[in-house]
Amino acid sequence: MANILDGKALAARLREELMTEAQAFIEATGHVPTIAMLRAGDDPALLSHARSVRRSFEKAGFGFQEHELPADCSQADLSAKLAELNADPHVHGILIQEPLPNHIDEDALILALDPRKDVDGVHPLNAGLLQQQRGRYHVSSTPLGGIAILDAYNIDVKGKRAVVIGRSNIVGKPMALLLLHRHATVTIAHSRTQNLAALCREADIVCAAVGRAGLVTRDFIKPGAVVIDFGINFVDGKLVGDVAFDEVAEVAGWITPVPGGTGPVTSVMLLRNTLNAAKWLLETSS
Amino acid sequence: MANILDGKALAARLREELMTEAQAFIEATGHVPTIAMLRAGDDPALLSHARSVRRSFEKAGFGFQEHELPADCSQADLSAKLAELNADPHVHGILIQEPLPNHIDEDALILALDPRKDVDGVHPLNAGLLQQQRGRYHVSSTPLGGIAILDAYNIDVKGKRAVVIGRSNIVGKPMALLLLHRHATVTIAHSRTQNLAALCREADIVCAAVGRAGLVTRDFIKPGAVVIDFGINFVDGKLVGDVAFDEVAEVAGWITPVPGGTGPVTSVMLLRNTLNAAKWLLETSS
Repeated sequence: MANILDGKALAARLREELMTEAQAFIEATGHVPTIAMLRAGDDPALLSHARSVRRSFEKAGFGFQEHELPADCSQADLSAKLAELNADPHVHGILIQEPLPNHIDEDALILALDPRKDVDGVHPLNAGLLQQQRGRYHVSSTPLGGIAILDAYNIDVKGKRAVVIGRSNIVGKPMALLLLHRHATVTIAHSRTQNLAALCREADIVCAAVGRAGLVTRDFIKPGAVVIDFGINFVDGKLVGDVAFDEVAEVAGWITPVPGGTGPVTSVMLLRNTLNAAKWLLETSS
Repeated sequence: MANILDGKALAARLREELMTEAQAFIEATGHVPTIAMLRAGDDPALLSHARSVRRSFEKAGFGFQEHELPADCSQADLSAKLAELNADPHVHGILIQEPLPNHIDEDALILALDPRKDVDGVHPLNAGLLQQQRGRYHVSSTPLGGIAILDAYNIDVKGKRAVVIGRSNIVGKPMALLLLHRHATVTIAHSRTQNLAALCREADIVCAAVGRAGLVTRDFIKPGAVVIDFGINFVDGKLVGDVAFDEVAEVAGWITPVPGGTGPVTSVMLLRNTLNAAKWLLETSS
């Protein structure tokens, strides 16, 4: 049976370390690290995500704001609100909730985000800086959480084969880059990949980030491999990952459960990014 | 024996198409697409690269400028020259030649480049836009040349296994992203990769971009695979690629020779990027 990569316990530890650092920052600067979530419309999935971020931020004593525009708001309405949040010195992180309504030009909105406040690493400048490992940048909290788990369990990826299933801008691609920067040999797989199971079976580390419950089965996993499950799926009202946990745990060497795996660590990474953003802003404002 | 992917013949064809388009642009706007190369010092490799770009641009009737600062110039000198080139409406593309002297902060210089004039796709904003396939951006001419060759020979990469050897910002990483966007299953390999030959042998497409003569040998190649050689190495004064051509050609299905493979197409792609930059600038200047 695989060893469990206990994200919940790790998150508690990382949160405590972060709180100490945040407390020192607040005392030194008088700034309470604060995130603003911006959305158009009140889709239940957006509200649920905002609630969970709110809980995490309030528990940590960080600032939290929600800005909801009507689903039929104009591009100009959203841009104006974003400009206001960019300019507000009490807002350090901004999270634009997606999906945005179809009539909204998402690219224009994301390019208008102050990269220093882009705590989800979605601005192309942050994506490019990560890709080139150049200067200071934000990385999306989900892949950061995956890496933090590998680090916490001293799993060295250097020279190892890693397969990342999924190529989204906020999980798959940045996770692949983070693994590459740590000298893994990285393969990005996706919906068009042929023989996915055989491909994954060659890997020492398999990361699943597609949003398909139970996609990764026992036959995907080389005995002893590390399995990182970023999936968030609801099946019959129950949260499950992309990995068929019970059968995969029989062959894997290490595995993140869902819930209690990458999720809680991701939450702490969003706090971490918001504290980093607050520092970055203070250091670069005149 | 492998079929030859004839980059020289393709480049001639693409150059002709480009000339027609450029001629129409020049007639319509009065602007001659012009590149400026900026360097610090007179290292022979930099001079040789500049000479080859000059030849290609003059032959095409495009504008060409060289700006050489002394090797001991200051960061401020280089920044001032770059700002001047950014502001010059007669300069459409800027190519900062690397390596820069050790005392120069390369990141600061590259971030100061007008992304619209970044015909080598080195600005992190262009890198990030490519990564996310968002909006308008420049991509380095070398990987564009590789893709143009695949396209010209109707080699469909969708669902195919591709291995890119090398992870540089101007070849390996953008090539991997371009292949990923075309739905290949892409692996990035590098100096820390273990069992490189076995990894490559799984691939339908092998791209070599490391700068080590003869690295890719016969045992790297699955019979019938496509081999794209981006290597530029001089051995006993002779230009050779990263692929041991003679032996690999016996097993590969398709292969680019060196010289006469990716090189000539890369040259045309730099012209193409400079014409694109000229259009982009005109469309976005008031």
